[in-house]
Parts: sequence; structure tokens; C-alpha cells
Amino acid sequence: MKHIKIGLLGLGNIGKGVWNIIENNKNKVESYIGSSIEIKKILVRDIQKNRDISVPKEILTTDPNKIIQDPEIDIIVEVMGGIDTAFEYIKESFKNGKHVVTANKAVIATYGDILYELAKKYGVALRYEASVGGGIPIINTLTQSLSANKIDELVGIINGTTNYILTQMSDFEMDFNEALKLAQKKGYAEADPTSDIEGEDAAFKLSILISVAFGIRISPNEIPREGITKISKKDIEYASQLGYKIKLLAAAKKLDKNFEFYVHPTLVPIHHPLASVSNEFNALFIRGNAVGELMLYGKGAGSMPTGSAVVGDILEICKIIKTDYKNQSIDPFKEINLNIIGEGISQYYIHTEVVDKPGVLGKIASTFSKYNISLESVVQRARGNQSVPLIFITHEVERNQLDKALEEIKQNRFVNEIASILRVENLS
Amino acid sequence: MKHIKIGLLGLGNIGKGVWNIIENNKNKVESYIGSSIEIKKILVRDIQKNRDISVPKEILTTDPNKIIQDPEIDIIVEVMGGIDTAFEYIKESFKNGKHVVTANKAVIATYGDILYELAKKYGVALRYEASVGGGIPIINTLTQSLSANKIDELVGIINGTTNYILTQMSDFEMDFNEALKLAQKKGYAEADPTSDIEGEDAAFKLSILISVAFGIRISPNEIPREGITKISKKDIEYASQLGYKIKLLAAAKKLDKNFEFYVHPTLVPIHHPLASVSNEFNALFIRGNAVGELMLYGKGAGSMPTGSAVVGDILEICKIIKTDYKNQSIDPFKEINLNIIGEGISQYYIHTEVVDKPGVLGKIASTFSKYNISLESVVQRARGNQSVPLIFITHEVERNQLDKALEEIKQNRFVNEIASILRVENLS
Repeated sequence: MKHIKIGLLGLGNIGKGVWNIIENNKNKVESYIGSSIEIKKILVRDIQKNRDISVPKEILTTDPNKIIQDPEIDIIVEVMGGIDTAFEYIKESFKNGKHVVTANKAVIATYGDILYELAKKYGVALRYEASVGGGIPIINTLTQSLSANKIDELVGIINGTTNYILTQMSDFEMDFNEALKLAQKKGYAEADPTSDIEGEDAAFKLSILISVAFGIRISPNEIPREGITKISKKDIEYASQLGYKIKLLAAAKKLDKNFEFYVHPTLVPIHHPLASVSNEFNALFIRGNAVGELMLYGKGAGSMPTGSAVVGDILEICKIIKTDYKNQSIDPFKEINLNIIGEGISQYYIHTEVVDKPGVLGKIASTFSKYNISLESVVQRARGNQSVPLIFITHEVERNQLDKALEEIKQNRFVNEIASILRVENLS
Repeated sequence: MKHIKIGLLGLGNIGKGVWNIIENNKNKVESYIGSSIEIKKILVRDIQKNRDISVPKEILTTDPNKIIQDPEIDIIVEVMGGIDTAFEYIKESFKNGKHVVTANKAVIATYGDILYELAKKYGVALRYEASVGGGIPIINTLTQSLSANKIDELVGIINGTTNYILTQMSDFEMDFNEALKLAQKKGYAEADPTSDIEGEDAAFKLSILISVAFGIRISPNEIPREGITKISKKDIEYASQLGYKIKLLAAAKKLDKNFEFYVHPTLVPIHHPLASVSNEFNALFIRGNAVGELMLYGKGAGSMPTGSAVVGDILEICKIIKTDYKNQSIDPFKEINLNIIGEGISQYYIHTEVVDKPGVLGKIASTFSKYNISLESVVQRARGNQSVPLIFITHEVERNQLDKALEEIKQNRFVNEIASILRVENLS
């Protein structure tokens, strides 16, 4: 019975979760793999720092090579974050014959293809369940449970910070800045929240999901994205009156020969299961050609949920180690016949602020018509002020065509502002 | 590169799904396992029967031994249903060194422990993802993705027929018999619906889930269960007025040293994600000590969703075959310190029909009080008739204590009927 030894790179939030889970659930974990297991060494920046965790100081080190080059260590667990240093350490680990588990979405989204090839070359395993959706088993479901399916569509809420903010705005009529401050106070948003609220974090995760589900490599930078900073509580109220909730959706879908994807604030019908995903929770809706519709829901972040996914990956590798390991990483299946489209056509919700004069609506409607954009509905919510909201829901249109029309509409002297442009998805 | 051959026992609804998925997704499937794959022989009762599927007649046989004893066949897929014959065929398959995939909840719930031991003895794999929740990856999630967790609670909607009926009753104000007939017409209920509507099917599945999640073997017969036949559209209406939906829940949870479980119609708060699981959909809520709350949602039945899970299992076994297989079945982890309780304490919804006389409510309330049952709320929905509904929601009480009180309440000559007894779960 092999005794399995682990090297941990990083002892922040996720690293502590990994330590606590292995300590607290030791019986369960060791019974599952049929071996004993031990975290032998942990890389930290400062050994003397006070930590609210029972890790013996002797196993801490500031020298990564003491871990990566230790011949007794079987598995390296990278939970330090960042991109380039983490990338270097993972490569070095492979070269030293170590299997690697990482929770690092940025490094997988940016260098996943290179790491995949390297793992294959060195005959070791690379697992990254925790990089998307925290403790929710998204990667395992897509790569294993749904292996019999061609995936047609993914659409989900994969950033907990923005979902928490949107939920607070919706349930307690806060504006964006109030809700952001509350999220920061509660630890759901970072001091610098840019990556979350501008949709970059979601784009990293969507890039990983696209490669896992469709076998297509799209860099996070190539994903059309918009954050939630421009959403007002008025938008949330109007959307609600129309029967929708506003969610930051990440989506990718095959439509005939086209492949579309985006990260964008979107109106979701109120009775759709995604509309009831609240606060810091995440959910991913998957459509496969055999399984039909599937949804996975849970906590997308946090020390213990993310640690749950990391330790799950560690244990799968333990089971591999105990057999005669041959590389079991999954060859992404390339569907080379698809046209890479980006965000494709959609219905849109346009919130304009206009002067309440006769003829303004007609003028705007004519401009839409000139650009071949037809309207599903128009709603005017107030009257008589200097600036009144006028809400349009369009039929399906390409974004750049919409932008041309809006550019012209903005020139109209009775139009004060194009306050919001949101997608509308009438998810079947 | 090994060519993998499969023997299929049964070509009903699920068998056809398995055939269609392997045919339609052949490129994806073969790329995933890195081998070619073929269904070599299929056991049927009648070779000449007309089937709406492109299976060549030459591969059909009525002799199970032609499949089970074929030395070329690697994997036997049992999708014929029933209990004892299926059990015999699976045992014979193991003895012939075959790995087995089954979608048969009855055989796994009844003989899972024996089959698990036999698979271990013969060094082969047994997989049964499709036995619970159709295409939803419940078994994989519990056994693999959540392997780092101790599971504290499972609660779910795991029977699509009853959920379809309850949804129709709720959304279209049908009574039970109307909704059942519609379900039969749509193919969601069998000609003899007993097993579904009386909760037997859910008890089979819960028995499997309990063994997989908690390592405890509870026979389906030992699970306290009640079906949905006594639920009236009035109950659904009253529940709705109180902020609840009625769902047939299957649940199992650890409470300190006790282990509780049941299949029972239950009031679920309307904003809980389980309340929005409609029609034939299934969902399972899981609470693990690391991951927190997780929910899996999808189609719990049907040819293609169930086939998706069966083929997923086949492909995992293919990957095992390609390595040097050592038994990888999961040893259930026995938590022997738990007291097996059955359904434990709960809040209850009691719908009584009474004569509208002064003093009736007081009399009933006193009887509850005599049995130490305190009431959370009492609602009287109508006045002045011979029979008026009087609804009680109790605080937490043991079921047998409640039954004693209700027995005495029934003796009251102004109580016409105890119309319904439903659980209330204020799922956190």
C-alpha cells in the first residue's frame, strides 16, 4: 500500500481549505483511495506569518525547488494564483515526473494547451476541476459523465461576485456601488474588483469550458465581454416588470456551422432555473445531444468548496497512481468545421433616456427600421420629465448592426443617453 | 489499439438510446477512448419484431449465453429491467470476466451488495450511473467529484412521473386522476403507475443513493414512504397560499448520531431551487461537509438521457480496459456509529375537514397539545359549509406521536376527515 505525498504551492484561502479537508476527512479520504496520504511540504512567502490553521511550521518552505524536486512527492497542488510563476512551477513539476492539480483559472485559460501537451509528453496527469465553478463538478461532468454527448450549448452564471452584486441590487433595490461595497465587506469581492465586475474572470472560465466541452481553443481575450458596472437599479426594475432577471451570463453554443460565445449581462426569463440562482451561487446549464438539458448548481468560490474540488482531483490521481499509470488526460476533440463567430445575433434590451416630446419614439423607431432592426416591444415608464426612460426590446440582430443604429440614435437631440444595452435570452 | 466489443441485454427504450448514441456520436466516442467500439450482439425476446431503429437483424439473438459467453465481448450492458433474471445474467457476466453496466435500479437496490462483492472477486467493474436520475451524473458526482467530502444530507426529486403529475396539478389546477391520465398519454407514466405514484420507484433510487453517499445499506422496503395519490388540488392551493410547493421528496440526512430517511410528499418553500423543478425533471440537492450545497438538475428518464449515462459508464470502462485493470470499484465507507432512524422528526401540514361549529378548533388544538405537539399556524380557508378545510402546520414532531394525536382527533364527531398529512421542510 503506497503512502501518497503531496506538495502544496500556496497556503492562502484555497490552500487552507485543502489542508483542512485532508485533515478533517482523513478517514474518509484514506478509505476511498486505500492508501495513507500526507501533505509533506508547503510553499509560502513568509514562514513566520500568523495563520489561523494548525500547520506545523517545519513543513513550510520558501524554496519551490525543495518541493518540486523532492523525489518522495507524487502530486504537486498549485493554489498560489498568478500566471507566469505558476506556469513555470507546473512545467517544472511535470519535468520532475509529478502529477499536478491546479485551481488556477488564469494559468489554464492562458497556457492550458501547452500544459496539456507537456503532461502528455512526461506521462503525468493534469487536473483542474477547481478552476471553474469552485466545488461544482463541472469539468468532471463535461469530460467524463457526458463523454457520450456532443455538447451543443453551455450557458451559465460562473462569477459569484457579480451574481452577489446583482442579487443585492435586485432584492434590496441597491445601486451598483452600494452592492459592490457590501460584497467587499462580506469578502465576496476583492479590494480591486475589476477582474470580476468587468467580466474578465468569467471570460477566463468560459475559455476553459469551451476547450473542455467543444475542443476549441479560444483565448480569453477573444471572448466578447461586457461587465455589470453600467447596470442601474432602474434596469433591474424594468427588466422585472417585463418578466426577467438580469444575470451576467457566460455562454457558448453551436448553431448549425457557427460557434458563438460571449460574457454579457443578459435578461433571463424569471421562471428559468438560472433566474433563481442567487447571491454568490454559480450554475451552469448544459445542453448535450443525448442528455438534453442539465444544470449544475453550487458554490463557485470559497475555501472549502474550492478545496473540495482540489482534493477530489488529488484523490482521482491517487487512484491513477495505484494502477499502472498511462496518460489518461482527455484529448480535446477538435470540431474544425465550425465558424468561430463570437457573440452572434441576439435580442437586446435598450434603455434610452429621452426628452418626453411627441415624435421622439417615432424618430427612434425609424432609425431602428433603417438598419433593419425590428422591435418586439417598446415601453415608456414615466411621463412629463426632462428625461424619461424609453425601453426597447429588439428582435434578433447582430451587435455591430445594433451599434450602428444606436450611434445614429445618440445624435438625436431629444435622446439624452443610451443608458444600457443588455442581451435578452429566452432560454427554451 | 484494442477494438472494444459490447453485448447489449435488451433493446427497449433505453437499449435503443444506447444504440443511437453510439451510432450518432461515433466519432466523438471513439476519439474519447482512442479505440473503435462496436455493439456486437443484442438479446431480444422476438427477433422479427418491427423496431423503429436501424439495427441489423443478424446481431439480434434470443439466447443470452451467445452474448454472456462470447469471449470477444468485453462489456455487458444490462438494460432489460426486472430483477431476478437480470441479477442472474449480471452474475454470469462477472463469472465470464465481463465488465457490466446496468441501468436497473431494482436490481442494484435489491442486490447491489452481492454484485459489488462478486465484481471484486472476479476483478471486473460494475457501473450503474443510469439507475438513478437518468442522464444526471449523480453517482459519478457522489463517488468521484465529492470523494473528499463527508456527505451530510441528500434531498431530491428523483421520480419524474410524480413530479410531472404534481406540476400539472399545480399549474393547471387538475386533480390527481386527470393529471395521471395526461402523464400516461404523454408517456411519462406507465399503464400500471403503482410503483411511481406510491413512491416505490423513488425508494429504490434512494436506497442506491444512501449506499453510495453514506456507505449504509438500507433495503428499499425499510424506507418509510408515502405516495402522492391522496394529494388534492385543494392541498396544492393551500400550500401555495402558505408559500410552498408540494413535491415528492426523497431524503436522507445525518443528524448528530442519527441517520434519517424517507420518501414523502413535502411542502418546499417556493423560493428554494427544488420548488422550481417542474414537469418530468429531476433534481438532487447534496450537502457535503466541504463543498456545502450542490444541486444537480436534469432529465431523470427517457431513452436518450438514460442512454447518455449508460454510454458514459461504458466509456469509463473502456478507459479502464486500456490500462492494466485492477478493480476500481469504490469500497463503501461504513459509518457504523450512526443510529438508523427512518423518518425522524419533521414539521407537518395537516389538512382536516371539519364542521364549522364554535369550539371545534379549540378541541383539536387541545388534542395536539395533549400529545405535546405545538402548532406553528392554523388556517381556516372557508366558512359556513357542512365541511370546511382547517389546515394546521405543526412544529417538529415524530410521526408516530402525530399519528396518535390524529387518531384521537378523528374520533371527534365534528371532524369529517383527515384529508392530508404532508411533511414541511424549510430547507435552509
